[in-house]
Amino acid sequence: MSVKSAFVSFIQEEQHRICSSLEILDGAARFGTDEWQREEGGSGISRVIAHGKVFEKGGVNISTVHGLLPREMANQFGVTESRFSACGISLVLHPVNPLVPTVHANYRYFELYDQQDKVKDQWFGGGSDLTPYYIFPEDGIHFHRALKSACDRFSPDWYSRYKMNCDQYFVNHHRKEEMRGIGGIFYDYLRPDDQFSERLLLEFARTCVQAFLDGYLPIVARRKDLPYGDRQVYWQEIRRGRYVEFNLIHDRGTLFGLKTNGRVESILMSLPPRARWEYGFSPDRGSAEAALLPYLQPRDWIQG
Amino acid sequence: MSVKSAFVSFIQEEQHRICSSLEILDGAARFGTDEWQREEGGSGISRVIAHGKVFEKGGVNISTVHGLLPREMANQFGVTESRFSACGISLVLHPVNPLVPTVHANYRYFELYDQQDKVKDQWFGGGSDLTPYYIFPEDGIHFHRALKSACDRFSPDWYSRYKMNCDQYFVNHHRKEEMRGIGGIFYDYLRPDDQFSERLLLEFARTCVQAFLDGYLPIVARRKDLPYGDRQVYWQEIRRGRYVEFNLIHDRGTLFGLKTNGRVESILMSLPPRARWEYGFSPDRGSAEAALLPYLQPRDWIQG
Repeated sequence: MSVKSAFVSFIQEEQHRICSSLEILDGAARFGTDEWQREEGGSGISRVIAHGKVFEKGGVNISTVHGLLPREMANQFGVTESRFSACGISLVLHPVNPLVPTVHANYRYFELYDQQDKVKDQWFGGGSDLTPYYIFPEDGIHFHRALKSACDRFSPDWYSRYKMNCDQYFVNHHRKEEMRGIGGIFYDYLRPDDQFSERLLLEFARTCVQAFLDGYLPIVARRKDLPYGDRQVYWQEIRRGRYVEFNLIHDRGTLFGLKTNGRVESILMSLPPRARWEYGFSPDRGSAEAALLPYLQPRDWIQG
Repeated sequence: MSVKSAFVSFIQEEQHRICSSLEILDGAARFGTDEWQREEGGSGISRVIAHGKVFEKGGVNISTVHGLLPREMANQFGVTESRFSACGISLVLHPVNPLVPTVHANYRYFELYDQQDKVKDQWFGGGSDLTPYYIFPEDGIHFHRALKSACDRFSPDWYSRYKMNCDQYFVNHHRKEEMRGIGGIFYDYLRPDDQFSERLLLEFARTCVQAFLDGYLPIVARRKDLPYGDRQVYWQEIRRGRYVEFNLIHDRGTLFGLKTNGRVESILMSLPPRARWEYGFSPDRGSAEAALLPYLQPRDWIQG
């Protein structure tokens, strides 16, 4: 079996398993299923949960698309016009309770082909990151430690390298470098070599997905029943506005999807259910909300 | 007085006059005033109204900025690196009542300088467009007729040309060419020539601003007290999500502002107070909401 087929099996299994876990945790809502075809080649399955007891909106999507790489993307990758295939799993969960963080994960595999349809380049990419609205330091430590354990099984360097990538990526540059959340890991253009075979890199993605579940689900379980009120919901909506800004202005995955004529509903599934923009909003000095921004600055989560 | 100075006086006067009119119409909230400086050169005055009786959020901003044109913008204009100045007035109003449309207007004047700081190019740009949530055909006719009268005072061709520009510009291309609203007029790179002096083009901008007020204020007055409920607010939030998508993904003015290190709060003042994204949302068949999208397709408003 080719690594591409193996990757497709992996994301199909994970989609099923993750949705089951999340449905049990939610206890009320179920995931719907939308299968779709892409006109230029490929297909996907979007699974979406909405108005749950725990999850206000969430999606776990898989897709396998192929065709001719758009010129703009070819330029970005530094290649001439090529045929490509891309498969991946992408997940965003926006919980009801503002004390539960939003989470995002995405793992993908990419191939470029030469004129004889031979693979001329291939790489893996992926990452998981956490976006809290309120500060619980132990949550950040737990989430990052789970990801570090996953990385450490493959290379002692990877966690620190991919953690730094993540800190540099999920940034609202237009807001004076404001961070989207507390990060996690992010890697891209990870190509097989003598040390890391393509099978090993597939195992790395699988391990990261497992670590994402181990890192996130206990946080949800612990925070989902904490009391909150209008003030917390208001702040959650303000912060979700920043999430929208990042996804529509800066996120390469979103722009790639929109430029390759991807399925809009699946791509924009990542947007929060509600968002708010207040001119010149600033949280009260000394409040829990005001403490969030400094807390989001990149830090060492492993030392605690 | 240079045309640039005259344009600056014009936008200062209009800002004052428009805010006064809107405050009277609102009857409850007042516009706040924020003066700001741009580090690389220039300044602005943002006037914002929020949580009014009629206007949930609105801004009337003026700015005069100058400096070195960012490379990306220079490429777009087809010039080498140049010093530039840009001044303009920009306005967005998001009413409380979903039966009152959102409106946007922007009028600006641009100069590029040669190495001796002589003006080597100059142009005017601007436009006004209306974004209803519910259909009142007479509102669309009234709005467009006001703009047509303004254009007709200068040239018999302009309304149809600038109306078409507007229909082509305010489009969410990533949503199968979904229209943002019912348009209005939009012009750009309008350069003085033998027939239209720079003073005449300034007068055109002034006439358009007046037409915008004449076209919009009666609509607000007529719809603001109509009854509505949760269903209408929900739909308003869904449609405002599309407004956010257009502004962050497609709007050249927003991207120009963010890329020239403009004042973020003033640029993103255009975003609605609240927005909502529901996966796969589709209005009930036969409902007033379902009728909106076909209604937004470009049409002849003058024949009615």
